[in-house]
Amino acid sequence: MEFRIDPWSHVMIKEYEKLFQYFGIRPFSEVVDELKSAVEPHPLMVRGVIFGHRDFNNIVNALKRGEEFAVVTGLMPSGRMHFGHKMLIDQIIYYQGLGARIFLIVADVEAYAVRKIGRKESIELALYDYVTNYIALGLSKSNLHLYFQSNYHPKYYRLIQMISRKLTFAELRAAYGDDLEVGKVMSVVTQIADILHPQLREFGGFKDVLVPVGPDQDPHLRLTRDLSQRFESEFGLKPPASTYHRFMSGLDGGKMSSSRPESYITLNEDPAIASQKLMNAFTGGRATAEEQRRLGGEPEKCVIYEFYAYHLVPDDGELSKIYYECRTGRILCGECKLRASDMLVKFLNEHRRKYEKAVDKVYEYINPPDF
Amino acid sequence: MEFRIDPWSHVMIKEYEKLFQYFGIRPFSEVVDELKSAVEPHPLMVRGVIFGHRDFNNIVNALKRGEEFAVVTGLMPSGRMHFGHKMLIDQIIYYQGLGARIFLIVADVEAYAVRKIGRKESIELALYDYVTNYIALGLSKSNLHLYFQSNYHPKYYRLIQMISRKLTFAELRAAYGDDLEVGKVMSVVTQIADILHPQLREFGGFKDVLVPVGPDQDPHLRLTRDLSQRFESEFGLKPPASTYHRFMSGLDGGKMSSSRPESYITLNEDPAIASQKLMNAFTGGRATAEEQRRLGGEPEKCVIYEFYAYHLVPDDGELSKIYYECRTGRILCGECKLRASDMLVKFLNEHRRKYEKAVDKVYEYINPPDF
Repeated sequence: MEFRIDPWSHVMIKEYEKLFQYFGIRPFSEVVDELKSAVEPHPLMVRGVIFGHRDFNNIVNALKRGEEFAVVTGLMPSGRMHFGHKMLIDQIIYYQGLGARIFLIVADVEAYAVRKIGRKESIELALYDYVTNYIALGLSKSNLHLYFQSNYHPKYYRLIQMISRKLTFAELRAAYGDDLEVGKVMSVVTQIADILHPQLREFGGFKDVLVPVGPDQDPHLRLTRDLSQRFESEFGLKPPASTYHRFMSGLDGGKMSSSRPESYITLNEDPAIASQKLMNAFTGGRATAEEQRRLGGEPEKCVIYEFYAYHLVPDDGELSKIYYECRTGRILCGECKLRASDMLVKFLNEHRRKYEKAVDKVYEYINPPDF
Repeated sequence: MEFRIDPWSHVMIKEYEKLFQYFGIRPFSEVVDELKSAVEPHPLMVRGVIFGHRDFNNIVNALKRGEEFAVVTGLMPSGRMHFGHKMLIDQIIYYQGLGARIFLIVADVEAYAVRKIGRKESIELALYDYVTNYIALGLSKSNLHLYFQSNYHPKYYRLIQMISRKLTFAELRAAYGDDLEVGKVMSVVTQIADILHPQLREFGGFKDVLVPVGPDQDPHLRLTRDLSQRFESEFGLKPPASTYHRFMSGLDGGKMSSSRPESYITLNEDPAIASQKLMNAFTGGRATAEEQRRLGGEPEKCVIYEFYAYHLVPDDGELSKIYYECRTGRILCGECKLRASDMLVKFLNEHRRKYEKAVDKVYEYINPPDF
């Protein structure tokens, strides 16, 4: 029995075969050793959660040479922040620790124009759910551009306007489907500018840019890469690098979705309810205790194991022990869930204390629109 | 023989019958008397050049009550400023003199994204052709918002984003035709915001807004009026009023067009060339001198008469004398052209002096983007 902590890495490559085969995404495992020669990789990188990349070598090279690079990501203020979102901000905080310039975007254009969320609601969600939680998780103010799409720099809006000239409806339909709406078009050109503007002179000029995303975002990345090349002569823009991470499964074994509270645990969930949700979660257990003792559990199918690997167990040795105990049938799901639940409750209680301190700092991090 | 100065007023209503019949544009003549009870009308209003309106009564009422109102118009920095453009800024300066708050927009989004003009070229054109000429013509800095669409207020960009949610592609196609481009969509939502944003709290809150346009712009106005009502609950927006003016004919009798220099005279034209262009212009003259002496000329078809009525003859008495002399065959085209040419050359020489003084003031009027 091997000691594994990355039961998904090979599965992911199979699942997203097309992305690898046709679209040129590379397995992340190829760059991990090179990254290790410069810095300590993030746990999600060695655990097979971050499974693919484009041009991540550029980021490794920037790290080696001590050159500035930028990391861009967004938050969607249309539902509560849950543990499925936490893995992304964990990466951001990691890159911030490595000296990266962070561009963190409140995607309030998509929230309003596509998801039809009220402005006040999405501003509140952004400030007191996402941003406050980010601060509580350790986001620093240094090297940080944290902004609402509706309240930013004129040069950002100029870039949005200019992108509109260099983009066709055929390209938009290819990337986002045939039922485009005007608001969707506005949101897309805005999100392309979110990724490309850090290279503009007004934001420090050319630097390598990394965008950590889920694989569903790759069409957007491909289009953005194309656009960057159309601005090469005007602004010297280069294509952004990207990494691709596995999503967390929903607690009920389906997709984790903001529309089904039973599928996720929020960062501010009542610990008793969070514990209950975890105890009811879908696992990689067998039909009977006897069978599980004989065959072992299947961590690669287990939501509880995901919580360990993504969030609860920082130590690789401890995680491989958990994997081993499960795979060899030494521990059954009930006991394992109790252990995970204890860890989760401890995390949530600590997080709540940090959250309460973080609330007062929100306005030091971001300048929100009044409406 | 009547003494006329407005040979087009009835023609225009016939020509744009559909606009009047189906779309609710009203003859401007209906409101002139009411306007006269408050202020002196602009010459273009009594000469039948401004021939239609929507809700102009609102503006008259604002004038009577001494309430603030706004006038919105744009300039397209994709070709030289010529006399066809002058009639619009003349109206703006008139309304500014009445105390209106002026919103004057450099439509650089359309220039770049739709007309594919380079950024530097269009910025130069805007500053040293349009804006400098506007200053030379008498535009004041007071009550003036003169801005590039690419370099303005965050609340303007937020409104653009919000408009995108409330607009369908079916509406865009109905107003602008089927061959929409992404840049065109960006330009349209931006131009809707140009008209609507003066009512936002950040720009002084609700006020009546007037948009003087050519009749070709009415589909845009209708769509903008619809949009304003979709923001009634969110921002208290009301539909803008509008006036419709007759375009100047091209010197060659065709359409005045930036792509045919022989069709227009620029504000900065060399007086000798301007004079020559005028001497070659299409007139309302008859086939022979004999016939013209017998039947009289047709001022309503005459480009020279347009120059008198739009630009060269401020005095209504003098203009009606010119009309009379022509209609009765008392003056032939050659002599009439010489008189017009003298007036034009005098205007251009004076304008050049004012232009040279105005150049240094451009940056007091507008804050241009660097690129």
